[in-house]
Amino acid sequence: MSADPPPQDEAAAPVPPARPLVDVAALQDAIARFARERDWEPFHSPKNLAMALTGEVGELVELFQWLSEDASRGVARDPLTARRVRDEIADVLVYLVRLAAVLEVDLDEAVRSKLATNASKYPVHLARGNAKKYSDHRK
Amino acid sequence: MSADPPPQDEAAAPVPPARPLVDVAALQDAIARFARERDWEPFHSPKNLAMALTGEVGELVELFQWLSEDASRGVARDPLTARRVRDEIADVLVYLVRLAAVLEVDLDEAVRSKLATNASKYPVHLARGNAKKYSDHRK
Amino acid sequence: MSADPPPQDEAAAPVPPARPLVDVAALQDAIARFARERDWEPFHSPKNLAMALTGEVGELVELFQWLSEDASRGVARDPLTARRVRDEIADVLVYLVRLAAVLEVDLDEAVRSKLATNASKYPVHLARGNAKKYSDHRK
Amino acid sequence: MSADPPPQDEAAAPVPPARPLVDVAALQDAIARFARERDWEPFHSPKNLAMALTGEVGELVELFQWLSEDASRGVARDPLTARRVRDEIADVLVYLVRLAAVLEVDLDEAVRSKLATNASKYPVHLARGNAKKYSDHRK
Repeated sequence: MSADPPPQDEAAAPVPPARPLVDVAALQDAIARFARERDWEPFHSPKNLAMALTGEVGELVELFQWLSEDASRGVARDPLTARRVRDEIADVLVYLVRLAAVLEVDLDEAVRSKLATNASKYPVHLARGNAKKYSDHRK
Repeated sequence: MSADPPPQDEAAAPVPPARPLVDVAALQDAIARFARERDWEPFHSPKNLAMALTGEVGELVELFQWLSEDASRGVARDPLTARRVRDEIADVLVYLVRLAAVLEVDLDEAVRSKLATNASKYPVHLARGNAKKYSDHRK
Repeated sequence: MSADPPPQDEAAAPVPPARPLVDVAALQDAIARFARERDWEPFHSPKNLAMALTGEVGELVELFQWLSEDASRGVARDPLTARRVRDEIADVLVYLVRLAAVLEVDLDEAVRSKLATNASKYPVHLARGNAKKYSDHRK
Repeated sequence: MSADPPPQDEAAAPVPPARPLVDVAALQDAIARFARERDWEPFHSPKNLAMALTGEVGELVELFQWLSEDASRGVARDPLTARRVRDEIADVLVYLVRLAAVLEVDLDEAVRSKLATNASKYPVHLARGNAKKYSDHRK
């Protein structure tokens, strides 16, 4: 006659799967189709894709190189620059997702594992505070 | 009296939303919390994050620099290297997602727009085939 | 019977050679010998060296990524960091000089030509002044 | 009564100075003047210059990213590509030399010290041979 739900029933109920941290499956499919249609697959070795990633990151960095940190925060205020930043970020993401695909790296699993590593590497009570500490912990 | 469904009804029917190409909301939240707990937000200017991205891509590239393209395809066969590759890819993704967040760039919208641009920039009948064409079209 | 010096004499006078902007011949030799002794030449394709350059630049950038611009100016004050900066700069230079060598690029000629291009691209009266102008001219 | 030359004489003889591995003094002067004339000095913090270096390396890498290693060796055969490669290499060198200057890093001393380190890190009898060994020693 208790209103409490019986524990065993809870246990039996389907556990909702943890929400993925990242889901890029649809993008992976779109890029794979794009490459296949153009016969670009032979060029997409991990080595080449890592280089392409470099090139795109270089273009992204160029947008910030002469700006102060403060100015870099407001970079989206100019619509033209905002668009260029968005496009370069997209380029980096496309090559990164493609690289993960050809290497069969599960991105969700990869970041989940990395965040766990980072959490133990930079415990809150030690990492808190100033740049110096932060930099030192980065080593 | 036609058996055909009236067009207006179709229009009225709920259109299923397009599946997102990327969904990184949960990762963005996790990174934001991580940074907030450690008071690292002041360091996360777009300028600094673009630099951090560079550093991580550099570490990723180092794993492939002396390998042939073929060897780079098999890099996951060695468990230790596979793990390093996975970790470096995760590091790049974390900083990229964080950069997009602080700039309020919607990654799904960004890649969607970029793929459309690429599709018109590299039409299948022109882009198909060899490296030369590919490279030229990249310019 | 003219008191003017005969032109042919002037022509005969030794013209002091223009001082080279850069002279890296001895470093090129040292690196070539280093690679040859270790049978590393097969790895030193331009493609691989460009990647190695990326990796080293990534390590250099990491030293500055969380620093403010001002702090980056004083980075040499800490002897340990000063040494790391010096070593990373040296690594970048070594790979750059090696890349130029395998591609038979004359670095002195290359920078001479580039400085001339830059001088006409950024005329003093236009380029002078603020970051905005500077960035715009960089495009 | 020995025919051997007395040691003290040798010591007294002028020792020819070791030839510098690199001499970039004239380029440093030219860049400094170029920046001063355009009031660009405030932008040339080490942090910003490290970013600019990244951007230029990215442009250099893009020239090689879809090429096989073999094709990368012959990249100078096409005059247009040869010129682009030369220009990008020059851009990288200019920013590297400028970065060294603002940090007061003596490039000759830096590479001399680094080559000595490398020589003890990769002894010929261990480093010789295949890519695997090479990569492992790079760690």
